[in-house]
Amino acid sequence: MRNILLTIAYDGTEYCGWQEQLNGISVAAKINGAIESLTGKRSKLYGSGRTDSGVHALAQKANFKTEFSGDCDRITAGLNFYLPEDIRVLSCAEVSEDFNARFNAKSKTYIYKIYNSPILSPFYINRAWHIKYPLNVGAMRRAAWEMEGERDFSSFMASGSPVKSAVRNLSRLSVSRSAEIIEVSATANGFLYNMVRIIVGTLVYTGMGKLTPEDIKPILQAQNRAAAAPTAPARGLYLKEVVYG
Amino acid sequence: MRNILLTIAYDGTEYCGWQEQLNGISVAAKINGAIESLTGKRSKLYGSGRTDSGVHALAQKANFKTEFSGDCDRITAGLNFYLPEDIRVLSCAEVSEDFNARFNAKSKTYIYKIYNSPILSPFYINRAWHIKYPLNVGAMRRAAWEMEGERDFSSFMASGSPVKSAVRNLSRLSVSRSAEIIEVSATANGFLYNMVRIIVGTLVYTGMGKLTPEDIKPILQAQNRAAAAPTAPARGLYLKEVVYG
Repeated sequence: MRNILLTIAYDGTEYCGWQEQLNGISVAAKINGAIESLTGKRSKLYGSGRTDSGVHALAQKANFKTEFSGDCDRITAGLNFYLPEDIRVLSCAEVSEDFNARFNAKSKTYIYKIYNSPILSPFYINRAWHIKYPLNVGAMRRAAWEMEGERDFSSFMASGSPVKSAVRNLSRLSVSRSAEIIEVSATANGFLYNMVRIIVGTLVYTGMGKLTPEDIKPILQAQNRAAAAPTAPARGLYLKEVVYG
Repeated sequence: MRNILLTIAYDGTEYCGWQEQLNGISVAAKINGAIESLTGKRSKLYGSGRTDSGVHALAQKANFKTEFSGDCDRITAGLNFYLPEDIRVLSCAEVSEDFNARFNAKSKTYIYKIYNSPILSPFYINRAWHIKYPLNVGAMRRAAWEMEGERDFSSFMASGSPVKSAVRNLSRLSVSRSAEIIEVSATANGFLYNMVRIIVGTLVYTGMGKLTPEDIKPILQAQNRAAAAPTAPARGLYLKEVVYG
């Protein structure tokens, strides 16, 4: 059996998220359907991780095994033929039989877009979090600096998430501004459930002055979801990159 | 009567264009409806010019006269309350009674976005012209240089357009590339019907090698729509700026 790794971009607005679910149309279901249409057989699709409803991807990774003999160009073109235009296979590669898009991932990068201006541009509907009042990007940067590093991120995890350890290495957390857009970029060896969105919510509270950069350390130490700020909405979040060893 | 000048952004995808028409919902109809809801009275709205179905605006200008007494912040917020989110009033200014958004315009700038990569990003659906094969941007730039200046643009006007003179001063026509996006920017004292889209169509033919930069002069001299290339699709076009004296 060949093992095929796909790089996939999608606008998550119309989907119930990556993972197949009973109550909505998922991105994975669309890709599974396209694989079945192209190859004539059902396959199991292994995504690098789930994305929630409304979350976007610039380069999600997923692999599947197949006996289909077409080359990677044909797989890319064939899947795109069957997929809706808001889901695109960007590229395809053949990988070793034991490769798994989830378990072999060494790090991931997410970006989060905030549209920080009184009036939301029509071109950012469903693609950014609109915050009308000016955010203090300097304070957000100092707060981000307090979060970087290998830490227990229990306070930045949706409560009730079933994980053995909440320790993750957040190797980079940056905040940059270009005109109305504030972009948060987060790279880690792994992310807890809702981790980026809770981090962004907490950075935004800091940018608003509801928290200070000095509050971040005690929030981390609390190891309690209630200590951090509310979760930022899904529509500003983009899975940007998955790195393999 | 007060004379109010609005700056308006819209995603033109869902509209039959700027101008009110019988066979579809126009941007102007939506704004007229919002003005009537806010002020309680119908007004006549004067746009800086029409945009076709699917064409976008980053900063369209339009004025209307009203006895409504609210200040500009209240007008902006009030209109946005009644407008759909894909049409936004960005700002509002009170202008002299004889000001007209169309007749007082000194120049306009349009940009046109081409997504030049084999696979169209989901984030550019309806927002760029997708051209799969690599375009020669150097050749497009040389062709643009041949078009700049005060010239008769009859060859770059939809045939049958009722104008006295097709002479316009195309003061700037630039082509730039950033990753997959090729952006054409055109500034003139006025534009003929479909002029930017026919210019872009001709630049793209040049970028494909179907025309050379040397072909531009004879195309202009022909003063015949049939001499230029096909019209580029509406979805890549954005009205970027209207300048008043």
